[in-house]
Parts: sequence; structure tokens; C-alpha cells
Amino acid sequence: MKINGKHYRSVWPIGEDAFGIIDQTKLPHIFETMTLRSADDAARVIKNMNTRGAPLIGVVGAYGLALAVREDASDDNIQKMVEMLAETRPTAINLKWALWRMRGALLNQPHEQRAAMAWKEAGLIADEDEAMSKAIGRNGLAIIRDIAAKKPGETVNILTHCNAGWLATVDYGTALAPIYLAHDEGIALHVWVDETRPRNQGASLTAFELGSHGVDHTILADNAGGHYMQAGQVDMVIVGTDRVTANGDVANKIGTYLKALAAKDNDVPFYVALPSSTIDWTLESGRDIPIEERSEDEVLKMTGRLPDGSVTMVEIAAPGSGAANPGFDVTPARLVTGFITERGTCAATPEGLRSLFPETQE
Amino acid sequence: MKINGKHYRSVWPIGEDAFGIIDQTKLPHIFETMTLRSADDAARVIKNMNTRGAPLIGVVGAYGLALAVREDASDDNIQKMVEMLAETRPTAINLKWALWRMRGALLNQPHEQRAAMAWKEAGLIADEDEAMSKAIGRNGLAIIRDIAAKKPGETVNILTHCNAGWLATVDYGTALAPIYLAHDEGIALHVWVDETRPRNQGASLTAFELGSHGVDHTILADNAGGHYMQAGQVDMVIVGTDRVTANGDVANKIGTYLKALAAKDNDVPFYVALPSSTIDWTLESGRDIPIEERSEDEVLKMTGRLPDGSVTMVEIAAPGSGAANPGFDVTPARLVTGFITERGTCAATPEGLRSLFPETQE
Repeated sequence: MKINGKHYRSVWPIGEDAFGIIDQTKLPHIFETMTLRSADDAARVIKNMNTRGAPLIGVVGAYGLALAVREDASDDNIQKMVEMLAETRPTAINLKWALWRMRGALLNQPHEQRAAMAWKEAGLIADEDEAMSKAIGRNGLAIIRDIAAKKPGETVNILTHCNAGWLATVDYGTALAPIYLAHDEGIALHVWVDETRPRNQGASLTAFELGSHGVDHTILADNAGGHYMQAGQVDMVIVGTDRVTANGDVANKIGTYLKALAAKDNDVPFYVALPSSTIDWTLESGRDIPIEERSEDEVLKMTGRLPDGSVTMVEIAAPGSGAANPGFDVTPARLVTGFITERGTCAATPEGLRSLFPETQE
Repeated sequence: MKINGKHYRSVWPIGEDAFGIIDQTKLPHIFETMTLRSADDAARVIKNMNTRGAPLIGVVGAYGLALAVREDASDDNIQKMVEMLAETRPTAINLKWALWRMRGALLNQPHEQRAAMAWKEAGLIADEDEAMSKAIGRNGLAIIRDIAAKKPGETVNILTHCNAGWLATVDYGTALAPIYLAHDEGIALHVWVDETRPRNQGASLTAFELGSHGVDHTILADNAGGHYMQAGQVDMVIVGTDRVTANGDVANKIGTYLKALAAKDNDVPFYVALPSSTIDWTLESGRDIPIEERSEDEVLKMTGRLPDGSVTMVEIAAPGSGAANPGFDVTPARLVTGFITERGTCAATPEGLRSLFPETQE
């Protein structure tokens, strides 16, 4: 994706002994990149959330391991570093998946070839992630084209919640991938960006991404999306997801459920974009998904930019009042029009999912 | 209601040539009152939302008009000032109602009696508003008692959006009046307080009010209410309203519609508390209500308290991105369980409303 006309991925190799990331803790106020030279560097930026997004931290972990192998290619060191990196974000499945894949590939190689092999494998994981996002983008693009064809000469209005863009992946993103491809082929688009309280990933990251790439967009308080759907100013909703269960229920950033209800009430198509690795075939329904309770400080305090450009945190609530902060909610499958995956689109039903992923059938 | 042990109304006369309000833009960080000496002062504090809440701005408008009449009691000036004040907030009907009532009373009087008459009438409107809030409280209390009776020994969980408390009226409030009365008679209560972006009236004003009065409460990002309804942790929703149309549609703070959808989806009773002056019998449905579009700065910036106690404004969104900011949305009558008014409760239907207000029938 582009920032100030320059092409970026969210992670990139620098020679063969370092790699770069965008410091996402400073966005959107300050655009700054970081150069990482060791596995410890990689562990630190994952822990501190300088880098985030499940697919992206898998790639960052892989590059971190590759740097460790350059120092010491022994079996012992590889095992130690895989464990150290995996512990940085214990719940992120993509990170473990990437590290185990790296370890499996490396332990089969002679020691002297491991450093070059590790660097190449990390690059491959990054390329595959980008390819997956692009495939999701192409499949979602077909839906946007259909909507555009039904209103020639008019702008297609898409609402999204949270950030499922290229900053959460290597490039393109999941929910935003179809939007970027549609924009790039000249479809007139406008995106309603839910600010996505309490962490404001929409107002900060999604708006930053769309603005940098030149996609027309408008930030909304999370409260406002239903009103615009009632007014006929939303043609479709696309969101990402953290986990989809076998019956098609969708866990995603808190507030997604409310937008899905409004979409249903106003006959607005509601799509969920995801790589197939997000589907949890072991869970029958969304009721089984544990919902993470996060710090009340995310609700009671807000980070922002002062007029002098410095970034500070302010308290925004009545002193002494507490807050609750569930990170996710579950949108029942009945409210979801369809899934957009790297394999194609399908209905949000067990049958729809199985038709796209027949290998999961028993 | 009391603040630091001192009894306050949210608006009060000062002699006969000024009146006072609490500066609600500074709450909850700083408690400060303002003295207003002209209709222009009144218009400014309504526009800038130093004072807010549909019933309260009606009273502030009435006092503002009374001050204008003291300057110039001519028919022309009264008409001009009524129009000027009515334009300050287009959505709330109470403001127009109070101004028209004042105008009606004044134009029947000899010029030399108009100033005293106007002052008295504004005071009457204030007293009637307080009595109305108390009556709404008693009628809503009956509903809370019923819920409490069905779960003996357990806490009644009520969700509210925005601020329809005593800071939005002269005293007691509308949506919060039943909560205060229930708390005062010892019913175990807990209130989920929607923070209510973009202006955060929930996190600042409602939490401030409830905390000051000792009512147990928890602030939520607006995104979270649906999740708690799904989890069975909300027994009822009570909100205020800025305008109800003859068919029972409800205009209220942006985001109310989303909570009403979630309440319906989870069989949670959704009540709207209102004084009858909020009913606009001239409008057939919510489609006819003009929705105020407010400044994008309310979305892009946030006011908060720095660690040193000073209050500042920070920019919270991606630089260069714009925002849209509709102040209200319309909740269709089909999503509303009932209205709680000063006369009693009724169904959110034309028949329900007419049964409570038979004098409006033609």
C-alpha cells in the first residue's frame, strides 16, 4: 500500500540481517518505522504492540527467528527462540503457526544452510500472507462490482468497523482488501469508518490507511452507522473477524453485532472477510468463544495529539466511575450475508462453509 | 439533586434580570456555573451546549426570552427573539414548545406587564418541568419494582444512553428519574452507562450524576451494550428522547436505534421516558424529523483531564481524515416497549399515545 506515494508493506527485509516495521503505537499521530536486528527486538515489538494484527505478528516472529538462526543455528537455540517468541502473545494462533512452520523447515537442513533458509522461509510466509489477502480482495471485489453495476454513475458506500486493513496483515488486509482493489480499478467508492471505541482502531489505523492510499472516507462515531443505513447511505458492510465457528457465528471487535443488527434491519448486505485459518472448526457456535475482558483504562482514558504535535493521554470520564471493556462480541450467523475468503465467497451457514472447505467434512 | 452536599437545580433565576446554569461542557472535570443576562447569552449557551437536554433547553430558552422582553416588549421583538432562540437547536421540540407557550402568554398582555409576566412564566415552566420529572419517575418506578419482584435478592441491571438525568431537565431527569426513585427506596440497582460518543454525555454527565447520588454504575463503550444484552446482563433499557412523533417513533441521541435493535433481538424491554411536551403531534412519523448535523470536531477531538488536573483537547483521529456527526437517530416505534410519561405509561403506538392524551384526538 502507499504512504505519501511510496509503496510499503507492513513488514520488510533490510539486507539479510535486519527487517523493518511501522511503529503502530504512534499511528496516526506519527509515522515512524523501526529497524529490528535480533529475535529480542522482534519479541519486544510484538509484546509492546508496535506491531499488531494476527497475520502480521506471525511474519514478524518468523523474521525474528531467522535473525536468531544467523547468530546460532543449533537445534537448541532454534527451540529456545521459538519458545521465547511464541510466549510474546500466547493467544495469537498465527504466531505459533509461523514459528512451528519455520522450526519444521529448519531442523531438516544442515546447520550451514539454516541461516539462508530461515530468511527465505520468513519471506515466503510474508508472500503467502499477501497472496491470501489479495485473493480475499479479488473475491470481495466481485461483490463491490455487482453493487457498482446496479448504481451506475453513483458512489458505492461501504461501512467498516475496527481495522482489518493492510496494517493488520502484510499488505492489502482482509476486510479492506476488496476496497483497495475496487479503488485501484476506478470504482467510485466511499468508506464509512467506525471510530471503534475504545481503542479507536478505525479513526486511527483504518482512516490512516485509507487516507494514505487516497480512498475517500469519513470517520463516524460508532453510534452513527445505523442512522446512515436507515438513510440508505450504506450499500454494504465489510468487517474482519477474530474467529468464526463451525455454524457461521462471528467473533469480532466489540460493536460488530450492533452494526450487523442495523444492516439486517435495513436490508444492507453484511459481509465478513477472513483467511480460512480464522475458522475454528472445533467450536460449534459463538456461545463457546471466550470473550476477552480488557482494561477499563481503555474506556476511561484516551490518547491524542496536543496542538504542539506531542502525544498524551487524558482522562475522559467522571472521576471515580469504573468501566467494563469486553474486547469482542459475537454476531450470530443469521445476521451475516456471507463470508469472503481466499477460496471464494459462501453463505454464513455450516453448509456454506463446508461447500468452500470440503476437506473439513468428516 | 445534590452536588457536594449542596442542593442544585440545573437552572435558577438570579434576581429578575439574570439566571444561572451549570456549565455542562466542563463537567465532569470542573464544576462551574454561568450567569446569563440576555437572550443572546441564552442562545449562545444552548448552541455551545453549555446547557443541554431537551427539557432543560426549553426552560433556558424561556428565561432567555424573558430577558429579551425586559429590553423590548414589542410584538416584533418577541417574534424575532422566539425565532432566534428556536433556531439554536433544530431537533428538540421542547425548546419550540416553551417559546411558543411564552409567546402565546405574552402577546395577550399589555406591553407594560409583559416583562414581569415573562419572568413568572419561565419560572412556572421550570417548576412544571420538575413536577413532570417527578411524575415520570414515579411511573417508571412501578416498572422497576415489577422487574425487581421477579428476581428477589438480585440486582436490577438497567442500561441507559446519553444523559437524560437531572442535568438534562430542571431536576430528577426523565430516563434517570425512575432510577433515582428506585435507588432511594432501596431497590438494588446497577446502571450500564453508554459513554455516548461523540460528546460522551454518558461517561461524563450520567456517570457524574449517578456517582454523586450514590447509584452503582459502570461505563461502557457504546459498542458494548449489545454484548451485555446477549449475556443476559441487562434487565431493561431506559432512554430519554428529543422528539416523539404521533406514530410513536422516537428521535434521541445518535446510537439509541442500535441499542433498541439489540434490546429487541434479546427480548430486553426498551422504554422511553418523556414529558408529554416532547410529543410532536404534528409529525406523522420519524421520517419527518429533521436530524441535526453537528461539527466534525466533536468526533475528531476529545476533551479530557491531564494528570495535573487541567483540562485540554486532543486530536484523536488520523490527520486529514474528515468525520460526519449526526446528533440524533430515529428509533422506530416497533422497537419500543413503552413510553413512560408524567401521565402514566403506554404502548409506543398511536393508540397508546391517544389513550394517555385523549385531548389530542380530533
